[in-house]
Amino acid sequence: MVEMKELQLHKAFQLIEPGPVVLVTTACGRKKNIMTISWHMVMDFTPRIALVTGPWNYSFNALIQNKECVIAIPAADLSAKVVKIGACSGSDIDKFEKFKLTPVKAKSVKAPLIAECLANIECRVIDHIAKHGIFVLQAVHAWIDTERKERRTFHANGDGTFVVDGKTIDHRKLMLAKLAPGV
Amino acid sequence: MVEMKELQLHKAFQLIEPGPVVLVTTACGRKKNIMTISWHMVMDFTPRIALVTGPWNYSFNALIQNKECVIAIPAADLSAKVVKIGACSGSDIDKFEKFKLTPVKAKSVKAPLIAECLANIECRVIDHIAKHGIFVLQAVHAWIDTERKERRTFHANGDGTFVVDGKTIDHRKLMLAKLAPGV
Repeated sequence: MVEMKELQLHKAFQLIEPGPVVLVTTACGRKKNIMTISWHMVMDFTPRIALVTGPWNYSFNALIQNKECVIAIPAADLSAKVVKIGACSGSDIDKFEKFKLTPVKAKSVKAPLIAECLANIECRVIDHIAKHGIFVLQAVHAWIDTERKERRTFHANGDGTFVVDGKTIDHRKLMLAKLAPGV
Repeated sequence: MVEMKELQLHKAFQLIEPGPVVLVTTACGRKKNIMTISWHMVMDFTPRIALVTGPWNYSFNALIQNKECVIAIPAADLSAKVVKIGACSGSDIDKFEKFKLTPVKAKSVKAPLIAECLANIECRVIDHIAKHGIFVLQAVHAWIDTERKERRTFHANGDGTFVVDGKTIDHRKLMLAKLAPGV
């Protein structure tokens, strides 16, 4: 059984800042859903996170109505599944069941965590800028699977190809003054 | 001499969607500047692009006043320079001069392209959501250096380390229906 450890909230922006493909779960009554998105960004270190979606996504109504979601960060070993999740609609299927993913009860929101992901961020919708299709989210809890072997995330190139994390460059000495407090 | 070729505008979202660290240039009168940011996202395929910044960045006033910028995509061989650009302010230095970068006249905006970068996107600010610090940009021209050898981009982990693009996974067959027209 996977155990997610709570991640200090002020470190959660580090899961989003590199720009990986993410899964977003929602719950609407007893029906839960998952969507795949790459259009998201960090807004501050608390963190607030923005994402873009609209009525063409089945999850849109759940975001509008319940004002809660979970951003789950998949690792590279889940890439095919993540693409398939993005290529079908939750209107007629239960994506957790179809894709053999395990929903885990979150601490503060009704949307479920995904056990198979590297990390999960529980979020509340604090604003919807309808004109631009932007949802502004406030993270309230974050969880990380510290035991998971495959830890590389992956990024969408927008043409059906994806790039997996490669080597890490350490520039900490160059930017000490710019790091968020406590990171 | 570097030659940038015009990139079809509907392909420019592919430069941003993977979430790389980018440079944003602005011009204010005769003074030009560069900032480093990772807080940005694609909003649609035209493309519109959102970024988050505020008055703590010297470039903020130029964005507010001139409503134009260029998003330049650096490759991994520029990572140390990009970090240094982000760690100092344009209020007292000319970053193009200090970091030996070459400003190139853009086609439609006053902000300059950066010759050393992999690609450049000319943008107009079409909205500023002050409450959230979000600038909404409309791309108007995009340019790519097709001859550049190092083409891997890099992504900020938020702790002073950066991850460079690794291997590419091809999932085009899984998502044919979801691709933007013409990609």
